[in-house]
Amino acid sequence: MQFLSDNTSTACPEILEALAAVNHGRVHSYGDDEWTLRLSRCLGDYFGTEVRAFAVATGTAANSLSLATLSPPYGAVFAHRDAHIETDECGAPAFFSGGAQLSLLAGEHARIAPETFAQALEDHPSVNVGLHSVQPAALSLTQMTEFGTVYRPADLAKLCELAHGRGLKVQMDGARFANAVAFLHCHPGDISWRAGVDVLSFGATKNGALAAEAVVFFDAALVRDFELRRKRAGHLFSKSRYVAAQLLAYVETGLWLRNAQRTNALAQRIAQAANPMLLHPVEGNEVFLRLGLERRARLRAAGFEFYDWGPPQHGEARLVVSWDQPQEDVEALCAALARILP
Amino acid sequence: MQFLSDNTSTACPEILEALAAVNHGRVHSYGDDEWTLRLSRCLGDYFGTEVRAFAVATGTAANSLSLATLSPPYGAVFAHRDAHIETDECGAPAFFSGGAQLSLLAGEHARIAPETFAQALEDHPSVNVGLHSVQPAALSLTQMTEFGTVYRPADLAKLCELAHGRGLKVQMDGARFANAVAFLHCHPGDISWRAGVDVLSFGATKNGALAAEAVVFFDAALVRDFELRRKRAGHLFSKSRYVAAQLLAYVETGLWLRNAQRTNALAQRIAQAANPMLLHPVEGNEVFLRLGLERRARLRAAGFEFYDWGPPQHGEARLVVSWDQPQEDVEALCAALARILP
Amino acid sequence: MQFLSDNTSTACPEILEALAAVNHGRVHSYGDDEWTLRLSRCLGDYFGTEVRAFAVATGTAANSLSLATLSPPYGAVFAHRDAHIETDECGAPAFFSGGAQLSLLAGEHARIAPETFAQALEDHPSVNVGLHSVQPAALSLTQMTEFGTVYRPADLAKLCELAHGRGLKVQMDGARFANAVAFLHCHPGDISWRAGVDVLSFGATKNGALAAEAVVFFDAALVRDFELRRKRAGHLFSKSRYVAAQLLAYVETGLWLRNAQRTNALAQRIAQAANPMLLHPVEGNEVFLRLGLERRARLRAAGFEFYDWGPPQHGEARLVVSWDQPQEDVEALCAALARILP
Amino acid sequence: MQFLSDNTSTACPEILEALAAVNHGRVHSYGDDEWTLRLSRCLGDYFGTEVRAFAVATGTAANSLSLATLSPPYGAVFAHRDAHIETDECGAPAFFSGGAQLSLLAGEHARIAPETFAQALEDHPSVNVGLHSVQPAALSLTQMTEFGTVYRPADLAKLCELAHGRGLKVQMDGARFANAVAFLHCHPGDISWRAGVDVLSFGATKNGALAAEAVVFFDAALVRDFELRRKRAGHLFSKSRYVAAQLLAYVETGLWLRNAQRTNALAQRIAQAANPMLLHPVEGNEVFLRLGLERRARLRAAGFEFYDWGPPQHGEARLVVSWDQPQEDVEALCAALARILP
Repeated sequence: MQFLSDNTSTACPEILEALAAVNHGRVHSYGDDEWTLRLSRCLGDYFGTEVRAFAVATGTAANSLSLATLSPPYGAVFAHRDAHIETDECGAPAFFSGGAQLSLLAGEHARIAPETFAQALEDHPSVNVGLHSVQPAALSLTQMTEFGTVYRPADLAKLCELAHGRGLKVQMDGARFANAVAFLHCHPGDISWRAGVDVLSFGATKNGALAAEAVVFFDAALVRDFELRRKRAGHLFSKSRYVAAQLLAYVETGLWLRNAQRTNALAQRIAQAANPMLLHPVEGNEVFLRLGLERRARLRAAGFEFYDWGPPQHGEARLVVSWDQPQEDVEALCAALARILP
Repeated sequence: MQFLSDNTSTACPEILEALAAVNHGRVHSYGDDEWTLRLSRCLGDYFGTEVRAFAVATGTAANSLSLATLSPPYGAVFAHRDAHIETDECGAPAFFSGGAQLSLLAGEHARIAPETFAQALEDHPSVNVGLHSVQPAALSLTQMTEFGTVYRPADLAKLCELAHGRGLKVQMDGARFANAVAFLHCHPGDISWRAGVDVLSFGATKNGALAAEAVVFFDAALVRDFELRRKRAGHLFSKSRYVAAQLLAYVETGLWLRNAQRTNALAQRIAQAANPMLLHPVEGNEVFLRLGLERRARLRAAGFEFYDWGPPQHGEARLVVSWDQPQEDVEALCAALARILP
Repeated sequence: MQFLSDNTSTACPEILEALAAVNHGRVHSYGDDEWTLRLSRCLGDYFGTEVRAFAVATGTAANSLSLATLSPPYGAVFAHRDAHIETDECGAPAFFSGGAQLSLLAGEHARIAPETFAQALEDHPSVNVGLHSVQPAALSLTQMTEFGTVYRPADLAKLCELAHGRGLKVQMDGARFANAVAFLHCHPGDISWRAGVDVLSFGATKNGALAAEAVVFFDAALVRDFELRRKRAGHLFSKSRYVAAQLLAYVETGLWLRNAQRTNALAQRIAQAANPMLLHPVEGNEVFLRLGLERRARLRAAGFEFYDWGPPQHGEARLVVSWDQPQEDVEALCAALARILP
Repeated sequence: MQFLSDNTSTACPEILEALAAVNHGRVHSYGDDEWTLRLSRCLGDYFGTEVRAFAVATGTAANSLSLATLSPPYGAVFAHRDAHIETDECGAPAFFSGGAQLSLLAGEHARIAPETFAQALEDHPSVNVGLHSVQPAALSLTQMTEFGTVYRPADLAKLCELAHGRGLKVQMDGARFANAVAFLHCHPGDISWRAGVDVLSFGATKNGALAAEAVVFFDAALVRDFELRRKRAGHLFSKSRYVAAQLLAYVETGLWLRNAQRTNALAQRIAQAANPMLLHPVEGNEVFLRLGLERRARLRAAGFEFYDWGPPQHGEARLVVSWDQPQEDVEALCAALARILP
């Protein structure tokens, strides 16, 4: 039974059906087709405001292209030190931007506290050494975070206000954005543009799509630069309809919420079963456990696949629930956890 | 009736079926799945030699990532001045490589003559000014070319020999590689590794896939650098099976050849109908015509969509046959051409 | 007797004296010293308008840093195909800008004709293919040109007007700017800001300095970006006074004009002696001759050092007069030329 | 009385004399002159081994160019978190390398402990996530460090051994290398190649030169790449003799040691006077004091210029002794410190 990651999952039937549904007729390429052209409207409705949305196929592309648009080569992008852009993208933000630097912040449960960010702005070397230092350019937030926790709208608003107050733009890595909305029972706008986010990587791949992420600009002024960077980076698809169609289906069929609610709920089941061992609050579809080496080995021996986490000797584990996770996997896991509990 | 480009086409049924066929089971992400792992073997069989093959989703990614692996930032990449990497990728090779420069060569029908390349190597500024100039690093060839012509194996071999003799690597943009093979009735190896090509962008998207190109390394030493660059550029897919599955189906079902033979044959029909107006020999699925302004307008008025080409006053046109082009489109086009012929 | 290049010359006594004159007292580093702070005012007086001027030490730095400020990574910079930034800087503009591309133009005597540039703007691929192409961003002009010719103010104005009309900025490579002013008997402003130039690389090294070039911004809005790029590229000097002092002396002592007048005059002597063999009008301190292979060999055998030029079989030669060229060198050269004349 | 930095100092008389001494005769440019050609031999004698040495004019250029030669764009360069390349070069290593990332290490007194580096290598994300992470490529050490302390040869050797054991190269930022040699009474080779350093930025500017740093390669294989990067970055001087002459004079007249011994000795005087307030051991020409806000203000009011250091509320200060620091400055400083001591 496999809890490695939500990107080990299949694509939803609705997604494959959407691909089939657009698979007729020769249409203009590179996004000049009815589906791609509908994307901004569709996501505008979703977010409750006018947006410019662009389809790409990987989260790294979505994050790095938007950061390159927000930061000059000599810019600093503030991010949590456990953010995906720092730990898992092979330095992509530096590549796309021409060398921008991530300024890493600590923060419990992979969330940046507004006070931490305020302090980091105040202490930033550029304040003292001026142009001898990289220059603060953007703040990157992950919602839901790498540790499965969720920023509350009020904290997001504070963070964005601090950023804007210093002339920084705010980018959000929303690879698991739907899980955050599902957890908060909020409107998608509440944790994006209403809180002050300028650009959002709106992920669909992990939550049921085949390969599709939308880059959503709430500030249209940035769009031209983005489009040129996307083309230049090989992330503009000639047969764009097939990426757009996934995103349209993802939003318009309610798939995004349905899947997120299901995986969140299953993760809660695991959280209850594993309660004393939780490393972080479980607010989405990820569960982090401090099992200890022995229990971790027993769990694995019982047939469960998951990633080790953290320092080797701590015996930590990450378990992620996928949209297509069988209910029985979770039942079995809970039972196994009950057996090995301290 | 639409002859704009082969990338305006749909995806083949075989491709969609392949997507459905792999859409079961949670598997390891980022290429560690049975389909992606089979890709190198599949393409090795296809080319008749050991290869390392990588799936990406756009031609720009395939070309630029491999050129970045072949050329240092201060390298010069020789290419035809009408090559796609020069005219249609928004400077992608410079972006991916950190600034490598295309050294553009002339050549009839978008083919580089071996003599032209030999002369360019001899005359290259680096010969005289040493490190004040960019340094020849690679030769990029397009097969089939941007003008729908095909390099013969002997010419390819001469070009590659010249390149290797000066320490340059050879990259091939094979966005329409299948059309070239179909035209030459040769083995795929004859116009790739046997001729001396080091890395090939093996295109499938234009010829029936949804979004899939293989980067095929005939020289395994270059692979590690490529893999890191691919990840860093956001071109490594988490759900890699869906890109790999397209390529497997494309090769293993014979789709590649079937489609190419069909589009080549239809283009030949058009070529015969338009014979006195041909700008270039028709050797694949593209037809370039010097219609003149008036005839071009009449053809368009008759309901045919195609791109204008060349200098505005020349009245040139490009017509491309897609794998899903109805036979009737071609019949209608031939009839229309007959009516407006000089 | 050596006519290889003006950068083979020594530094003027006035320059060394200037270094000695500022060599007292500990002062703030990185340009916060009285000499560096005076530079903008000094060059503002020189040009007859307000400027922001920055000292760097090489022409490549001056040109590439300013082009990086004018062009995004996906930008195209129009330049003559024999421009120094294309032929002799190892791709520096692409490095500094993150991949901007030079769009090369032909033009007699290394000058770009306004009509040529107008046509290039009209024909630029971006007009047809939009974001599939690099985007015109800047025009780079060389005054005096690589072939020793000088743009007239009216032509410069036309070129700049064309550029600005399309939203492009204009950079001028003025490595031999003084020679152009001396030739035209004009005001420095006439061939820079009054003609529409936005940023000028004002060269001093070739004309008597040790290592000093000023980057002169006539548009202050661009300055902040430039300053950060300069620092990041290692071209901000800690002991900035020694670069600034050279530039101040160069301008304030009249050195710039004195040296340029002398070398121009000596080159005229050579031009007269070599008249039937001149490849380009001699308008500065450079003389290009079509000697033929035999005469070239004889001239060299007579003890003259110079660079071969052009295609090997043409027997062309470039001779450059340096500020410290002994009068006798020129006399001897003229005599030798007289002996070998056709 | 000014203790801001050693780069606020003048150039030594020996340096200006050296400039004058080479200021005769037209010589080949770009380093093909007798002085530049002698540089490798001169520094080879100095280090007691064969080297390839290159003259540049700023420390940022020296460090970043060599790091770009050692690290691919997806490389990680380990460095102390207070290293100059991190804090004061506006992200230059990322610019020159095309995006390489600094992996920052803690360490008392700005020195990296071998254990810390060993642990960092073991814990590096690339060990677990493979190509999803940047790849360890180089270790950058600063000798003497940013906090005025000196690595002992044995520790350097351990650090280099760890680096080489993992396939990393070692770069040394030796902006104040002479001070380290003077402190250790060792041979220059002992803290460079004999310890395992592959490339050294051998600084002269801070210690008496006008603007000159040598990049010294102990591994000749890397040289070609470096030379092309240097040219491309505008750090190859046409009148190269004037940079080379500074370095030759710096080494051959013993200036390097004389100046370093003097500034080290004066700093020791200050260290004794300020003993209870020292933040770091004083092993070179820099003194870091925890004065507290009030005493710091009093010291400044007494006429001493220096930089504040560290967090604002801590009242820390950095004082640097320059080669041309009058003895009286130091006497006065010691007296003032005695008056305000706790």
